[in-house]
Amino acid sequence: MIKVGIVGGTGYTGVELLRLLATHPGVELAVITSRGEKGVKVSELFPNLRGRVNLSFVEPDVAALENCDVVFFATPNGTAMRSVPALLEAGVKVIDLAADFRLQQLEDWEQWYGMPHACPEILAEAVYGLPEIHRDAIRSARLVANPGCYPTAVQLGFLPLLEAGVIDPQSLIADAKSGVSGAGRKAEIGILLAEAGDNFKAYNVPGHRHLPEIHQGLSAVAKGPLNLVFVPHLTPMIRGMHTTLYATLSVPDVDLQALFEQRYDSEPFVDVLPPRSHPETRGVRGANQCRLAVHRPQNGKTVVVLSVIDNLVKGAAGQAVQNMNLMFGLPETTGLDGIALLP
Amino acid sequence: MIKVGIVGGTGYTGVELLRLLATHPGVELAVITSRGEKGVKVSELFPNLRGRVNLSFVEPDVAALENCDVVFFATPNGTAMRSVPALLEAGVKVIDLAADFRLQQLEDWEQWYGMPHACPEILAEAVYGLPEIHRDAIRSARLVANPGCYPTAVQLGFLPLLEAGVIDPQSLIADAKSGVSGAGRKAEIGILLAEAGDNFKAYNVPGHRHLPEIHQGLSAVAKGPLNLVFVPHLTPMIRGMHTTLYATLSVPDVDLQALFEQRYDSEPFVDVLPPRSHPETRGVRGANQCRLAVHRPQNGKTVVVLSVIDNLVKGAAGQAVQNMNLMFGLPETTGLDGIALLP
Amino acid sequence: MIKVGIVGGTGYTGVELLRLLATHPGVELAVITSRGEKGVKVSELFPNLRGRVNLSFVEPDVAALENCDVVFFATPNGTAMRSVPALLEAGVKVIDLAADFRLQQLEDWEQWYGMPHACPEILAEAVYGLPEIHRDAIRSARLVANPGCYPTAVQLGFLPLLEAGVIDPQSLIADAKSGVSGAGRKAEIGILLAEAGDNFKAYNVPGHRHLPEIHQGLSAVAKGPLNLVFVPHLTPMIRGMHTTLYATLSVPDVDLQALFEQRYDSEPFVDVLPPRSHPETRGVRGANQCRLAVHRPQNGKTVVVLSVIDNLVKGAAGQAVQNMNLMFGLPETTGLDGIALLP
Amino acid sequence: MIKVGIVGGTGYTGVELLRLLATHPGVELAVITSRGEKGVKVSELFPNLRGRVNLSFVEPDVAALENCDVVFFATPNGTAMRSVPALLEAGVKVIDLAADFRLQQLEDWEQWYGMPHACPEILAEAVYGLPEIHRDAIRSARLVANPGCYPTAVQLGFLPLLEAGVIDPQSLIADAKSGVSGAGRKAEIGILLAEAGDNFKAYNVPGHRHLPEIHQGLSAVAKGPLNLVFVPHLTPMIRGMHTTLYATLSVPDVDLQALFEQRYDSEPFVDVLPPRSHPETRGVRGANQCRLAVHRPQNGKTVVVLSVIDNLVKGAAGQAVQNMNLMFGLPETTGLDGIALLP
Repeated sequence: MIKVGIVGGTGYTGVELLRLLATHPGVELAVITSRGEKGVKVSELFPNLRGRVNLSFVEPDVAALENCDVVFFATPNGTAMRSVPALLEAGVKVIDLAADFRLQQLEDWEQWYGMPHACPEILAEAVYGLPEIHRDAIRSARLVANPGCYPTAVQLGFLPLLEAGVIDPQSLIADAKSGVSGAGRKAEIGILLAEAGDNFKAYNVPGHRHLPEIHQGLSAVAKGPLNLVFVPHLTPMIRGMHTTLYATLSVPDVDLQALFEQRYDSEPFVDVLPPRSHPETRGVRGANQCRLAVHRPQNGKTVVVLSVIDNLVKGAAGQAVQNMNLMFGLPETTGLDGIALLP
Repeated sequence: MIKVGIVGGTGYTGVELLRLLATHPGVELAVITSRGEKGVKVSELFPNLRGRVNLSFVEPDVAALENCDVVFFATPNGTAMRSVPALLEAGVKVIDLAADFRLQQLEDWEQWYGMPHACPEILAEAVYGLPEIHRDAIRSARLVANPGCYPTAVQLGFLPLLEAGVIDPQSLIADAKSGVSGAGRKAEIGILLAEAGDNFKAYNVPGHRHLPEIHQGLSAVAKGPLNLVFVPHLTPMIRGMHTTLYATLSVPDVDLQALFEQRYDSEPFVDVLPPRSHPETRGVRGANQCRLAVHRPQNGKTVVVLSVIDNLVKGAAGQAVQNMNLMFGLPETTGLDGIALLP
Repeated sequence: MIKVGIVGGTGYTGVELLRLLATHPGVELAVITSRGEKGVKVSELFPNLRGRVNLSFVEPDVAALENCDVVFFATPNGTAMRSVPALLEAGVKVIDLAADFRLQQLEDWEQWYGMPHACPEILAEAVYGLPEIHRDAIRSARLVANPGCYPTAVQLGFLPLLEAGVIDPQSLIADAKSGVSGAGRKAEIGILLAEAGDNFKAYNVPGHRHLPEIHQGLSAVAKGPLNLVFVPHLTPMIRGMHTTLYATLSVPDVDLQALFEQRYDSEPFVDVLPPRSHPETRGVRGANQCRLAVHRPQNGKTVVVLSVIDNLVKGAAGQAVQNMNLMFGLPETTGLDGIALLP
Repeated sequence: MIKVGIVGGTGYTGVELLRLLATHPGVELAVITSRGEKGVKVSELFPNLRGRVNLSFVEPDVAALENCDVVFFATPNGTAMRSVPALLEAGVKVIDLAADFRLQQLEDWEQWYGMPHACPEILAEAVYGLPEIHRDAIRSARLVANPGCYPTAVQLGFLPLLEAGVIDPQSLIADAKSGVSGAGRKAEIGILLAEAGDNFKAYNVPGHRHLPEIHQGLSAVAKGPLNLVFVPHLTPMIRGMHTTLYATLSVPDVDLQALFEQRYDSEPFVDVLPPRSHPETRGVRGANQCRLAVHRPQNGKTVVVLSVIDNLVKGAAGQAVQNMNLMFGLPETTGLDGIALLP
């Protein structure tokens, strides 16, 4: 059994990790920490875990964590980096669900996250945990930077096109829509039901922290310089993310459907829909799945890719478990076979 | 493996049955029928089942169904009763998720459902599938009448009080609130998002079909004649049911908390919260669970019970699987250990 | 023109007051205060007011307020009472939308609101602003205590029955459901869209501050001692309140429909639906209206009243404007003729 | 007083027309027709109109309609064109809220709407009712084709850029999101709360009927051939439309903010937000307003315009009333000064 620790389990990625790990056959939940909720039973905060998770939150405690085989950080940005060196030193593997190790360029990270990095020397070692690109590196990684939700949905959508070199990498547009759980379990007025309900808006159009992360990932596969416009929106639902991706085709003729089907043929968690389909976010609610459809409206020069995930699962906790499975040599799908909840 | 047939699987109880049975370790999904969707893949209608259920809907076919060990009817009221006698004759067990076999009094049934009953001779044999009351009878039943969603939530809430004889059975009030999936997957204007969203209303206050069902169940345990006022409401959510139950205490002093805890101590799917708690519907979303809290406001003469279920799980498909487990001698919780999805 | 000041206009009752007063033909909006948002344009906080309200929030300033004809307090409980004596002294009329002057018994107030009252000598002068009961007193009042949302919906529903003496005043049950805007525009986790959305729960069953307010109001009209069980619930919608009221009939025969129609015949803002109706909250969304229906299920001993309001309008800001109209001798409906927004 | 008739008032544009016209000071509501609801009081179908609109639906009756000054068609596509010639002949002005007269090219119309046109000879006379472009022609029109909701939001967003010639007209992308009321008040499974709630999806990506309408409008102002990719999405809210528009800048330097502010400086119903703003749909809920913001992310070559409307008001009924005001020489804003409902 893999002994698992979770740091900062009071947010939505934390409770989703607990939901997935509590029924994972290869895992023993050993410790979960929270300064604010120290001593509180996990199931008091999250009633869905009553009778399923008997842990209580404890003060962050290095010794307890060093006793684990793997530690998940479900903390705000800037927290994991302060503890990771010691854990790695102690032989503990780490999966960070926040952004501390996602950007390889130190300056980029410090600019977008507005603080100095606590362990820049470890950045280079971190593996970006998108298994559909970095599966082998993840298998042998000590430290995995779990991707953001937008970056997961956007990269999986553009990937086949950029790898095949059939689009102009300077023409990328990602119009992304997220449910409010993506903003976290935080006491903020903007995400109240009375504010965000029955409402739709864009946000951070001048610049969102997921832009450099997506740019870095896609640049690595693009043939030439890449340009991306990224516009995130808040949509009045709890879970779910839909990205609508646009790019200009650079070759006169290409079988887009075949391209996508072949690229993801052996991927357990990426599902390409038949031609002329429209994936729905609810179709992957609670499941570790990215579902894609590719269109070429009016047979024009623009390709449109529709990509949906559950932002808390394939966009966060589910992908983290997928990475853990890879890091510990388990079948990649272990504990991730739950069926989406519909309706 | 239990060979399972489902008749009429295009509604919400149908897709929920499929979600639960597809991961049930003791079941083989053999056949699913639908006149309207004949030939359509189940996963085309319900994208959450893509890659998980490979069946297509077939025309209702007695031979195919007679080959099953058990047939679930997830059909409109008045459908199951036309096929059940032949299936029982062929040695197939039947679980009806509709109302055809819920009322023992033929006249009651024909009055409330507005049609003659097709097989009144079988009514007496049908076992009402509320395991918390009829577990032993269900184990040996050929035909189980799966309870309605309101009746499940209301009966489990009043049960300890009536069994213990601590309330006046003539003073019962059940104020019930249901998510819209309880109304079914039907093209009706009243349950459109633009009609039922951001809106709240009562309905059927003069009389709802679940009233006689609840009355029959509670009368059987009450010590004396029973009177019940039942007011259902439509609440703008997808899944979930909350009933708020009121009764007048008939004894001066009783430890209500202990009464509830003892009654449900060994029940795997009924969970009594600590004193002064308020269960939430989302805490059981997708899970086969009834969660209860009992209050006595201002230490007055009125007891208030709060009871929540997922109307599609403990209120329909999950309870049906629980009944199947009992009928086939499996551990009662088999295939029903999914954790509620929160948020 | 009535010169109006608003203290604390950054919450939902504040913005709703502004929406109503900005188009009120007899009003000049003179000053609006907020410590936290000093200097911010009202329309920056509330985009619906762009181009319609050009005020900016100013620091609370006694001189500016003393220059007004009337001051509305849309502040947290315990704020108005500190400024009201000086304003009354200066000849300014006051309408408090919070609870500072709603309870006549000082001890009750201090117990339920957990603080000493700053001006108990003024309590007796305050008029409870439910025009359907206290219209004449409001007309000549200097200080109006605007009722809470639950108390408005509940009292208007029970009123005809208690006045006519046809129910047992010891048998009252109010099962109330509120949209989340009733909880205010506050950064609290429990009312996030990701928490309160697609969810339903009761809260404060052991005791809610609106209980003594309702009790006080109904006791005054009841013939004999009154007992009330009050259970509030949070429902996943933005605006709207539905109360379902139960009482035991104390007379063998009474024409309930006629009773309600006659009681509210000349009330501009109370609308009694035809027999067997079910009012919807959306039917009064944005309108200063209480809509009622009365039922007697199965012709039994229990009367059921359904009562809906918009918690921010007839339950708060609209009623406050109605009170202002009365206090200044305007036609009661002035500025309150907006039609509900449906869908 | 303008005598108004409404044909087909049982849908959402119908009830919204009634809400606006019932308080319009220059209008007398004379007749409203519906085959299906003949004899039913309007206020029975739409409870928000109780006490405000006393009309009942009548059978469509040419004589009654010919007695009106103006007739609004709030009917399905293909209905108005059968009655319009006779009404015009009788001297009645017509505003069609459906699509019968929106496309000038007969072949386009017949292809996209899948039926022969009943009065092609009148197409050329119809004026496209977007006042921000065709104000003068509308003033003297007998027949106005009221724009679709998507076309209103998209055209107002692209207009300043195309008129000024600062973008490549072949590079247009419109990513549009609509609340479900845009789909109409129809008994369809796809727009049930249990289907469309907590869900997000694109639809009609291969081709939507509003594409040729937008193309026609924008081509008329573009300098050169125009290409547009249009992707509509369904978002889980009742009212509101958000379009996110992308285009490639064709000039090195341009003050986009000034361009937008100048273009709409004197428009009563188009509001340009300050730089770096993000309009919200709820900010225009119930109001006849289009609110815009213009961005140039990372100072790159792509301009992003955010455009919001209430699909039922500026996207339908409100714009129709605006057109009526123009056709009858009233101040354009008459009856359209309601403030958006927020929250």
